[in-house]
Amino acid sequence: MSSCLDTRPSSGAPTTGEAEPTKSRIEVALAGALSRAEVGGPPLLAAAMRHAVFPGGARVRPQLCLAVARACGDPLPALSDAAASAIELIHCASLVHDDLPCFDDAALRRGRPSVHRAYGEPLAVLVGDGLIVLAFETLTRGGAEAPARLIPLLTTLCRATGAPSGLVAGQAWESEPSAELQRYHRAKTGGLFTAATVSGALAAGQDGDRWRALGDRLGAAYQVADDLLDVVGKPEELGKPVRRDATLARPSAVAELGLRGALDRLRSLLAEAVESIPACPGEDQLRDLVLRQAARLVPEGLAQTAA
Amino acid sequence: MSSCLDTRPSSGAPTTGEAEPTKSRIEVALAGALSRAEVGGPPLLAAAMRHAVFPGGARVRPQLCLAVARACGDPLPALSDAAASAIELIHCASLVHDDLPCFDDAALRRGRPSVHRAYGEPLAVLVGDGLIVLAFETLTRGGAEAPARLIPLLTTLCRATGAPSGLVAGQAWESEPSAELQRYHRAKTGGLFTAATVSGALAAGQDGDRWRALGDRLGAAYQVADDLLDVVGKPEELGKPVRRDATLARPSAVAELGLRGALDRLRSLLAEAVESIPACPGEDQLRDLVLRQAARLVPEGLAQTAA
Repeated sequence: MSSCLDTRPSSGAPTTGEAEPTKSRIEVALAGALSRAEVGGPPLLAAAMRHAVFPGGARVRPQLCLAVARACGDPLPALSDAAASAIELIHCASLVHDDLPCFDDAALRRGRPSVHRAYGEPLAVLVGDGLIVLAFETLTRGGAEAPARLIPLLTTLCRATGAPSGLVAGQAWESEPSAELQRYHRAKTGGLFTAATVSGALAAGQDGDRWRALGDRLGAAYQVADDLLDVVGKPEELGKPVRRDATLARPSAVAELGLRGALDRLRSLLAEAVESIPACPGEDQLRDLVLRQAARLVPEGLAQTAA
Repeated sequence: MSSCLDTRPSSGAPTTGEAEPTKSRIEVALAGALSRAEVGGPPLLAAAMRHAVFPGGARVRPQLCLAVARACGDPLPALSDAAASAIELIHCASLVHDDLPCFDDAALRRGRPSVHRAYGEPLAVLVGDGLIVLAFETLTRGGAEAPARLIPLLTTLCRATGAPSGLVAGQAWESEPSAELQRYHRAKTGGLFTAATVSGALAAGQDGDRWRALGDRLGAAYQVADDLLDVVGKPEELGKPVRRDATLARPSAVAELGLRGALDRLRSLLAEAVESIPACPGEDQLRDLVLRQAARLVPEGLAQTAA
């Protein structure tokens, strides 16, 4: 489940006008969640959990969640902050467990030692477990004043995370003798992107299902971009090794479609994503934001390749 | 976090009149939860998750949860079933992760191969993650019709499971240079027992805090009994090796208080537990049940030792 895009140090985050305040909302919300998990607990666990969450990558999923909430009016910002943080905490948990020796055995993450390299394997297992629980605790806390909205938000987070079709299942497809690429990718990456758009809408009191397609297409695009970066990216820019898919014989859009085919697929997914944005008060602004993020997903060396 | 008592194969379950229907309620609820996690997902993950949950041990925590709910009238049995199942799923998840090579490296659990021995380490990590998520999903589903009760139930489960003071924190104290025995035990074992009594009451619409002492004392008693069994138990009866605390230099009541001191502590904790039962419609029946369970906690070879 490792992601090249996610491993960029935080300087790789977008610097557009809207994204920055959103990013600081996310950092504040995550810092609050982590600090509540620390008081009186084992200090090394607390330090290792912080190591897993800060400094973050581009915070793409929580930013997407807040962008959708904002496009829908964002009437309960504490709830959308909680939803966005919960999604990011699950994402961070998955990176810690994916880096473990029994999976990717990754020494580096976001240009720093992975959690198990810095704190040992036992604490890395516990950090992942603790962050999953913290995600549910954060969401529950944020939804305490709006219990009717909390239930679909929790259901969305569970489905995106667990079995049979969330992140955990996506990673588990790697242990099966064969896995269909789309199902694998949808569970592995798509789940949290879909949860991000659906949750942003739910937190704002809107119908989450109308926002499913946007998250689904962006998640798929993100995964294809990740597969491309694994082939054409440079380790010093990514903060971790490349060519991992081939080395670990993992399903990859490049292996299945070739470089050109994967690039075509990325472009059509991004077009479908933009097309799918439902009518809402902040529709135009959200479209601009998605288009700008989309431009970043095409690896630099391939940006000139004709569509 | 491994527990000798939990490793007894399910034949070790109580056979008293009331416990059996309760046990079958729990098995049905757990089977329903597991089956919802399987449809269309990776088959090996599904099989490994089942291996972790069935056949169970004595199901002590969910039985305690249902016993309290019943003593309080149990007006929403679907919700108390969900709360009891969620607690057991968290417990099973913790056993799978505790058995991993980086912790206890246990080959056996409940007399059968541990999950990582049967399905490999990657799937064992994912089974633990998946069961944690399934616990929250199960509780959320059970609370869909009673959102006001769901929020304190979720908060209770999170606190008992995560950091700073739940199961995850309890296990993480083992990675600290020093840990105070009581804090370690309270987080390691006490958390889920307290969650069991508090959740049983909450699911029945009662004040959960009044039931905290019962779970707290029973959890502490259970941990002391576990420490005693690790010293005086027989591996063939427990389904796993003994003398693990000494081998792994883990905090233990026997190491701290001696055999006789630990036995005294067990007995006084059990007396405090019975004493703490709040006034409720099913008070007498619950007291009988706790006394019968308590009798089982004193290891056979020590039962005749004078109090």
